[in-house]
Amino acid sequence: MTVEIICVGTEILMGNIVNTNAAFLAEGCAALGLNNYFQTVVGDNEERLTWAIKTAMGRSDIILISGGLGPTEDDLTKEVTAKVTGHNLIEDEYSRKAIEEFFKKRGTKPTKNNWKQALIPEGGRAIPNPNGTAPGILLEEKKCTLILMPGPPAELRPMFEQQVAPYLAERSEQVIVSRTVKLCGVGESKAEELIKDLIDSQSNPTIATYAKIGEVHIRVTAGAESEKEAKKLLKPVVKEIKSRFGNKVYSSEVDETLEEAVVALLLENGLTVATAESCTGGLLSGRLVNIPGVSESLKTGLVTYSNKAKRKLLGVKKATLQKHTAVSRQTAEEMVKGLASMSKADLCVSITGYAGPVAEEGQEIGLVYIGCGLKGKVRVKEYHFTGNRQMIRDRAVVQALVLMREAMLEYFTENQTAEKN
Amino acid sequence: MTVEIICVGTEILMGNIVNTNAAFLAEGCAALGLNNYFQTVVGDNEERLTWAIKTAMGRSDIILISGGLGPTEDDLTKEVTAKVTGHNLIEDEYSRKAIEEFFKKRGTKPTKNNWKQALIPEGGRAIPNPNGTAPGILLEEKKCTLILMPGPPAELRPMFEQQVAPYLAERSEQVIVSRTVKLCGVGESKAEELIKDLIDSQSNPTIATYAKIGEVHIRVTAGAESEKEAKKLLKPVVKEIKSRFGNKVYSSEVDETLEEAVVALLLENGLTVATAESCTGGLLSGRLVNIPGVSESLKTGLVTYSNKAKRKLLGVKKATLQKHTAVSRQTAEEMVKGLASMSKADLCVSITGYAGPVAEEGQEIGLVYIGCGLKGKVRVKEYHFTGNRQMIRDRAVVQALVLMREAMLEYFTENQTAEKN
Repeated sequence: MTVEIICVGTEILMGNIVNTNAAFLAEGCAALGLNNYFQTVVGDNEERLTWAIKTAMGRSDIILISGGLGPTEDDLTKEVTAKVTGHNLIEDEYSRKAIEEFFKKRGTKPTKNNWKQALIPEGGRAIPNPNGTAPGILLEEKKCTLILMPGPPAELRPMFEQQVAPYLAERSEQVIVSRTVKLCGVGESKAEELIKDLIDSQSNPTIATYAKIGEVHIRVTAGAESEKEAKKLLKPVVKEIKSRFGNKVYSSEVDETLEEAVVALLLENGLTVATAESCTGGLLSGRLVNIPGVSESLKTGLVTYSNKAKRKLLGVKKATLQKHTAVSRQTAEEMVKGLASMSKADLCVSITGYAGPVAEEGQEIGLVYIGCGLKGKVRVKEYHFTGNRQMIRDRAVVQALVLMREAMLEYFTENQTAEKN
Repeated sequence: MTVEIICVGTEILMGNIVNTNAAFLAEGCAALGLNNYFQTVVGDNEERLTWAIKTAMGRSDIILISGGLGPTEDDLTKEVTAKVTGHNLIEDEYSRKAIEEFFKKRGTKPTKNNWKQALIPEGGRAIPNPNGTAPGILLEEKKCTLILMPGPPAELRPMFEQQVAPYLAERSEQVIVSRTVKLCGVGESKAEELIKDLIDSQSNPTIATYAKIGEVHIRVTAGAESEKEAKKLLKPVVKEIKSRFGNKVYSSEVDETLEEAVVALLLENGLTVATAESCTGGLLSGRLVNIPGVSESLKTGLVTYSNKAKRKLLGVKKATLQKHTAVSRQTAEEMVKGLASMSKADLCVSITGYAGPVAEEGQEIGLVYIGCGLKGKVRVKEYHFTGNRQMIRDRAVVQALVLMREAMLEYFTENQTAEKN
């Protein structure tokens, strides 16, 4: 069963608002096992809206239309839908009462325009809208079903979830279930190469890779008659993918972020952490603090942007800064060591680099050193990031998280081996 | 001149990501005076992408296509565009070199897939992509122009702004010029009320308000035959708006952010700054460090998330934490005072609050205290923010910037008055 989404609104075409309705409806349909092949945005314009609805009716089973149900003359969705499907608009008694109630509750009176919202195409059915004055409309035609919903997300979302989704679920033949395997420390091309045989040989589940900053997500999606059946199809494929990437897999939970995985490792193992940031200026600690519960682990975070701060707070030697500059392997190492000594944290991380935009003589924009010390063992890695100042900083933060994770995993492996011996 | 936007990506159809590219491109086109009547989303599917491109070519002058330029086999946009327009794909020497450079800089090697990204339709022109390996493509056909851009926003946005927009501007008949008056410390309804008469009486320029986190932007847009003419229309309206909001206006430059305005005030007046953050965990210092040149001003940034860190680094009294808790006016004040004494910075800011998601007994999620001390004078403000953890933190950072700005402006006014006396 295919579904098509049409969003009506000049403010979307002007770029004044981001079309979050389309994403919301698409996600809801995907979860119901409905295939969405087209999304269209048109303005409040009779000719173009007519084209969009006619085109959709010729190729999709279900058409979700949002927007253009308001009380003003601009709002044409209902009128155009009635015209295209050859129905008259008639007053819906339930909707008229709902509008009366809505205004009564607010202690105000409806304007003449508001009564327009009680009209629906003959043969259609009003969908109650407890959050506004525009009811939705469900219109079952011979070859397809049209579902009209109001544009404001605060009205559309509950209407879809509570009334439209259950209707669609009854009509859907299949259930779709996805799992996402999240990798860090490996590029997209490389990742794809490693599972190319799986991607090529699979049609259900399907496998797709998505590049994020410093990460690659592999989504595995299966469709089946029941959730249980779909999960059964997913399981061996997810397992195989995980085994190919080993500890590059940091999570396979849809909501878990890289910083969450890092903080979980810290907390599970009772490790404390401290950060000293130069070019990232607190973005790393800011991401760690985004995880509730990190207070038990994060001992301190320092922003040591100037040389003075590096010397004063971390004890980086003047000679080191003079000889090797602030952006050097040596400085990153001294930052970690100084941080360890002042904070007494188990895991200490330093970031120093040139984020641009202007390079002084001898500086390479994008050159970043990240230092990471865990219980005395210090490693420093050199990176050459591309992009603007913001991107270089974001990439540095992600790589710091990757390095922290690697250091911990290595340490745990060594300790396990040591324990066994 | 009409422009049409096609976004390619299964992840948009699945609702995994919100289509921010369409909004970004639409906004950019509107600013250039181009009319956008259609936006379409299709997946990485030959048949449907072919239909979308053919349909757009039949009705629009310029077609902006984003996504599907990656190195993997899924990525079809270039191949389909070449097929629809009847061109072969040929290797573009410039793009090949750019890809070589990109990997050389990173010290890694391109995979076989990456070379696919150097192919462009014959007769087309590669658009350099300094932020990734997929170049854009400009293809001028008889009746319309196709412009292909990579899907990742971090690559698409600079490519559009720096290379595509100037090209489109040359082809647009009308010049649209916008000015944005940026306000902080005032809400959207209040702002709109104050200029309602202007909004209602104007059609060219038009005036629209946009709410951002902690800010309100008022965009004034004029269309005319020449830039000079458009600017002439804008000038008196912008002047009037500015006069109505006084020093709530922090900028009327399109690119200037609130943190930039704050850093500019610091640097112009030779003031140094230091931060001590609890619930925001370094996000404030991270935003300050985003401004090049801040190193002259930012003495130090501390993340004091735990009570221990507040005591050890800032000298907050144990009794204060016990009596008033970490989230209190008293703690925020002691944090500022301790920070001033350890950092010797002129302007010291502290943030402490409950960002959630789980409130312990007696805690109100969203309660945040921000302390701000300038040359000895300390003020602490109490805030009650709404939203999730991330939103509360973002709002706190913006309000800290607003408070820093207010403190400086007040100080300068007092000092000027003092000098005059």
